[in-house]
Amino acid sequence: MTNNVPTTMKAAVMHSIRDIRIETLPVPQLKDDEVLVKVMAVGICGSDLHYYTDGRIGHYKVEKPIILGHECAGEVAAIGANVNRVKVGDRVAVEPGVTCGTCEACKEGRYNLCPDVEFLATPPVDGAFVQYIKMRQDFVFQIPDTLSYEEAALIEPFSVGIHAAARTKLQAGEIVAIMGMGPVGLMAVAAAKAVGASQIIVTDLEPLRLEAAKEMGATHTINVAEQDPMDEISKITRGKGVDVAWETAGNPAALQSALSSLRRGGRLAIVGLPAQNEIPLNIPFIADNEVDIYGIFRYANTYPKGINFLSSGVVDAKKLVTDRYRLEDTMEAMERALNHKNECLKIVVYPNQ
Amino acid sequence: MTNNVPTTMKAAVMHSIRDIRIETLPVPQLKDDEVLVKVMAVGICGSDLHYYTDGRIGHYKVEKPIILGHECAGEVAAIGANVNRVKVGDRVAVEPGVTCGTCEACKEGRYNLCPDVEFLATPPVDGAFVQYIKMRQDFVFQIPDTLSYEEAALIEPFSVGIHAAARTKLQAGEIVAIMGMGPVGLMAVAAAKAVGASQIIVTDLEPLRLEAAKEMGATHTINVAEQDPMDEISKITRGKGVDVAWETAGNPAALQSALSSLRRGGRLAIVGLPAQNEIPLNIPFIADNEVDIYGIFRYANTYPKGINFLSSGVVDAKKLVTDRYRLEDTMEAMERALNHKNECLKIVVYPNQ
Amino acid sequence: MTNNVPTTMKAAVMHSIRDIRIETLPVPQLKDDEVLVKVMAVGICGSDLHYYTDGRIGHYKVEKPIILGHECAGEVAAIGANVNRVKVGDRVAVEPGVTCGTCEACKEGRYNLCPDVEFLATPPVDGAFVQYIKMRQDFVFQIPDTLSYEEAALIEPFSVGIHAAARTKLQAGEIVAIMGMGPVGLMAVAAAKAVGASQIIVTDLEPLRLEAAKEMGATHTINVAEQDPMDEISKITRGKGVDVAWETAGNPAALQSALSSLRRGGRLAIVGLPAQNEIPLNIPFIADNEVDIYGIFRYANTYPKGINFLSSGVVDAKKLVTDRYRLEDTMEAMERALNHKNECLKIVVYPNQ
Amino acid sequence: MTNNVPTTMKAAVMHSIRDIRIETLPVPQLKDDEVLVKVMAVGICGSDLHYYTDGRIGHYKVEKPIILGHECAGEVAAIGANVNRVKVGDRVAVEPGVTCGTCEACKEGRYNLCPDVEFLATPPVDGAFVQYIKMRQDFVFQIPDTLSYEEAALIEPFSVGIHAAARTKLQAGEIVAIMGMGPVGLMAVAAAKAVGASQIIVTDLEPLRLEAAKEMGATHTINVAEQDPMDEISKITRGKGVDVAWETAGNPAALQSALSSLRRGGRLAIVGLPAQNEIPLNIPFIADNEVDIYGIFRYANTYPKGINFLSSGVVDAKKLVTDRYRLEDTMEAMERALNHKNECLKIVVYPNQ
Repeated sequence: MTNNVPTTMKAAVMHSIRDIRIETLPVPQLKDDEVLVKVMAVGICGSDLHYYTDGRIGHYKVEKPIILGHECAGEVAAIGANVNRVKVGDRVAVEPGVTCGTCEACKEGRYNLCPDVEFLATPPVDGAFVQYIKMRQDFVFQIPDTLSYEEAALIEPFSVGIHAAARTKLQAGEIVAIMGMGPVGLMAVAAAKAVGASQIIVTDLEPLRLEAAKEMGATHTINVAEQDPMDEISKITRGKGVDVAWETAGNPAALQSALSSLRRGGRLAIVGLPAQNEIPLNIPFIADNEVDIYGIFRYANTYPKGINFLSSGVVDAKKLVTDRYRLEDTMEAMERALNHKNECLKIVVYPNQ
Repeated sequence: MTNNVPTTMKAAVMHSIRDIRIETLPVPQLKDDEVLVKVMAVGICGSDLHYYTDGRIGHYKVEKPIILGHECAGEVAAIGANVNRVKVGDRVAVEPGVTCGTCEACKEGRYNLCPDVEFLATPPVDGAFVQYIKMRQDFVFQIPDTLSYEEAALIEPFSVGIHAAARTKLQAGEIVAIMGMGPVGLMAVAAAKAVGASQIIVTDLEPLRLEAAKEMGATHTINVAEQDPMDEISKITRGKGVDVAWETAGNPAALQSALSSLRRGGRLAIVGLPAQNEIPLNIPFIADNEVDIYGIFRYANTYPKGINFLSSGVVDAKKLVTDRYRLEDTMEAMERALNHKNECLKIVVYPNQ
Repeated sequence: MTNNVPTTMKAAVMHSIRDIRIETLPVPQLKDDEVLVKVMAVGICGSDLHYYTDGRIGHYKVEKPIILGHECAGEVAAIGANVNRVKVGDRVAVEPGVTCGTCEACKEGRYNLCPDVEFLATPPVDGAFVQYIKMRQDFVFQIPDTLSYEEAALIEPFSVGIHAAARTKLQAGEIVAIMGMGPVGLMAVAAAKAVGASQIIVTDLEPLRLEAAKEMGATHTINVAEQDPMDEISKITRGKGVDVAWETAGNPAALQSALSSLRRGGRLAIVGLPAQNEIPLNIPFIADNEVDIYGIFRYANTYPKGINFLSSGVVDAKKLVTDRYRLEDTMEAMERALNHKNECLKIVVYPNQ
Repeated sequence: MTNNVPTTMKAAVMHSIRDIRIETLPVPQLKDDEVLVKVMAVGICGSDLHYYTDGRIGHYKVEKPIILGHECAGEVAAIGANVNRVKVGDRVAVEPGVTCGTCEACKEGRYNLCPDVEFLATPPVDGAFVQYIKMRQDFVFQIPDTLSYEEAALIEPFSVGIHAAARTKLQAGEIVAIMGMGPVGLMAVAAAKAVGASQIIVTDLEPLRLEAAKEMGATHTINVAEQDPMDEISKITRGKGVDVAWETAGNPAALQSALSSLRRGGRLAIVGLPAQNEIPLNIPFIADNEVDIYGIFRYANTYPKGINFLSSGVVDAKKLVTDRYRLEDTMEAMERALNHKNECLKIVVYPNQ
């Protein structure tokens, strides 16, 4: 079933570092269990910027032209023969990693650890800076009319926070510290608020980001350019330390602060990836205080919750969108993200407007 | 109620570094909820040796004469007015840390994190190289006749392994790697065996310790002086990695190996304390593989299980006892432990023989 | 330390069924770890009414005059020599069950299962319809100035809901059905809201109670006198069923509805005690849907959270207090609770006003 | 790839109640991700007998000829184009329920609750009393040479016990009571032994079954025809009750005994399905003792563990096979299972011998 789907479409194709060109490509053909999504909003993520400037992240390397973008939402434009979860015309959020469903990790419910995942905009898989993408139906989630497409696109970074909350068993009434207020950190604040954290302490260097954190639900902000985070957290928690800390910035000092900020028996999530691999951690602190440390890799089973939280109004994610671009201006959007980092929170591209 | 208890007793009192003297002290007076234990066997632990040679561990400092020893078992010689859990004549194992029972940690079942714990042989609390000690009745556990006192004394280091197994959720049928075959590591092998680990891979430098590990239940031994532990573990697990790893030696390289040996989604326990505080860990490995890391500080709720496991015969802990001394020879026992490290596994002192 | 504490006080003593007399008693003497609380507010609970009308609950039997009341808060009037957690003048909530701190249940963090608990107003232990009570310091919790005494007294029934949420692992974003809107049910709604349940479906027969449930946070109310709860829940959840259900009324039909309302893999808490012991449950439904059922007995480790939730303003518990009485009128208050059940939500007695 | 696979094969087809005929059918054609298994051993399960005598179980009804049998193992005879987990000639155990891999239950790791599962020998899906079956590759598990095909077939009922152990969090060193020593109960004993239960108390009416339970690892047997199970369990546990109980027989009295046998805070698994739906349970007992009750429906993620446990020698499942038949005699095997229930433990059919 289709809905006036054209045969060709525009796509923003990255040919090499800092070289994105708008091209005309055929609209994808669907398998029986796939859905064609008319892409209405795509957020720019830090990983997009990494590929754009470096051509690689870790062992993932851009070796041929690639379409970036993986935070997206849109309208169902066509469905394969066996699709029964959504119908043409549905408004949907897209979970960008398609997993095998059959390996041990998938069978155990940790599908984010599936070795065979195909993830949008992770080489060699193309992403969402394009007018139409296809997706297996179980990674497409209907959203209510009250949710805008740009909010729905934000469910992707929101998912990281929701997953961190689940992994660290963050409970209503607990105190959490979140290090780094980039988009993932800001949406992590939203996740902490959604699960009922009573105090949400955040750190960053940029006043703009700390302000945005307050809008998302932070109860205390610490500008680490001016204040010592350990002193501040100690004051806020009356010397006890926080129940849970999440490091989202990939900053070694922030990671060490996150660890040191914990109360005895506290829990730490490592979300951000540092530039270098090896970071010194205080091992006796971990042992003596029986700290739990949880690595975070993407997310699993978060989309229904994310839609639910955003629809409920507990969080107003729209406030994070500071810049909006047409598909044709994807490269300009990327450059702005790079060069005006401190003026932008989340930049969104609208491929069909 | 008492049982021919003398009024004075012998004690091995450490006056300064490497200076232990046998003295005569009054037998302790009991409070209503306390038990007097005639000490029959006391193991020498690494922490005893630290205090003996350095006079301190971290911020715990020996500032006046102290009696060392905290791995002990004995016979109930007298009980306070309100004691109802044991009776005079019972053979018992002694859990050495008395907790407050009323703080948040205690109330939540993590009493090993009680800030007010009084732990035998941790300054300024006296320990068990003595003929009689008193203990609050809830830290004294009856043992069956089939269990010897020296086995019962080993429940203390065994408890660390049992606790690590609980914290890392080690399941029957899983593969565990245990780094470091000191007494804690060896008893950790016993714990892994007791919970049904299907493969127990151990590392050390000393053939004597690797041999002892086999006796405790290790299925694979790796001598890190001769073999690369990563290569060997990769071979044994066919490239997958282990489900769980425990570092018990406080060795930085062993900790890094333990981390790297994990499969995706694997779990690491940090048991051993390194000499320096900061150890570099591979953060992207932790994040990308969603590793869990659990700090281990002593143990809680392990004594009934430990007694149960040793009584069941699943483990024969007696094999670890290589040297036996009278109380009078406590200092000689300590010196042997220091100077013949590679000939000794566990040294036990018998204060009433 | 004391604060103008008199030597005698008034108490509402129940001599036999429906016979409560105001008497003058000595103010209690403190042990070293006890706190004297000047009782400012005491809620009337269903169990108080049971003892008042029947003289017993299960095997607990009133065999000599007893003071009822266990939901209370007040001001610290004096402290024992070793008390360091509160000071004279502090405003406090009182957790009414004092546990041993040393049994297996206490050591494992499930102190509500302590066999030696002494619980206010559970024979033969006297309760809180009195001007001063003493309490071990670890069961007395400071409250902020923003919290009224009557709100603080409500933390007791609130705790049952908080504990049910913890036992059934109710997550933010989940759907919960709560059967029975007595005071425990109403405060359970507040607990479900505090942990972020996205839909809270409640049932009762009384419009007054259903209205109150809405004030506490219910999103859907079902009057079981007029509507079939299964039909309604099925409509609300689009045939899927709820994630979690709590039965708080002790009503057999409500329990069966609660069970049947669950989705596959759902979780049920049994909070209410039915008049008869044996209730028929649909066993194949439990097995085929892999339902979890959790018995709920009082609560543990809930007071800090309860104070936190009420202080945060997420719930306005004051709305539940419909009737207020002086200590002298305790019996009148009890009679009103019995005879005008459908006009009253929570009745509070003020012993010092 | 194939291995001398014929085009036709023999199958034992049930045409109506108590009417099984040997027919010649085409060997199944494979899809790209499927494996053809030459069936070497098939156990007869209670559900096979139900369909054979009643033509239905619950709402599952035999409406056209069906092949029964779902406990099977064999040799890989051919593989589809995309199969990479097994190769022709591998010896394998077959997990009989193929799930969708994409629904919420599958994504969360509880794939046994997948609404779209296709389960061998559950109408209208054909089963394994046949020479060749096809299976999606992720439900076929290689077994070591040391494991016989009939042992590998027993991994299916073993899985129920392994799953019950996981659901009820049965720990090494705990005491479990298992009610009913049919094949599922007997393999549940094996599962309890594999995870290290220290005492395994079993009940049944038949001396043959109680003897077999001992061979599987039961430490105490109770013949409920002669002994009161509550009295016996109370004696064995010194009045405390068991940590965990599993009811496997679908017997109302056994279910009530299982519940009553629990200690405070104990855990119950409901494995067996009773003939009638509604069984009265003691609700105050559940609430006052904070019992957990877990419904058990089949199993998930158990095959690797099951293979591991049987290979390790911790359990000798072969002892359960009392009767062996050729495929041609499947009906005779079914009749024997029905008519000589008390002489047979597990009956196995060998379709290729």
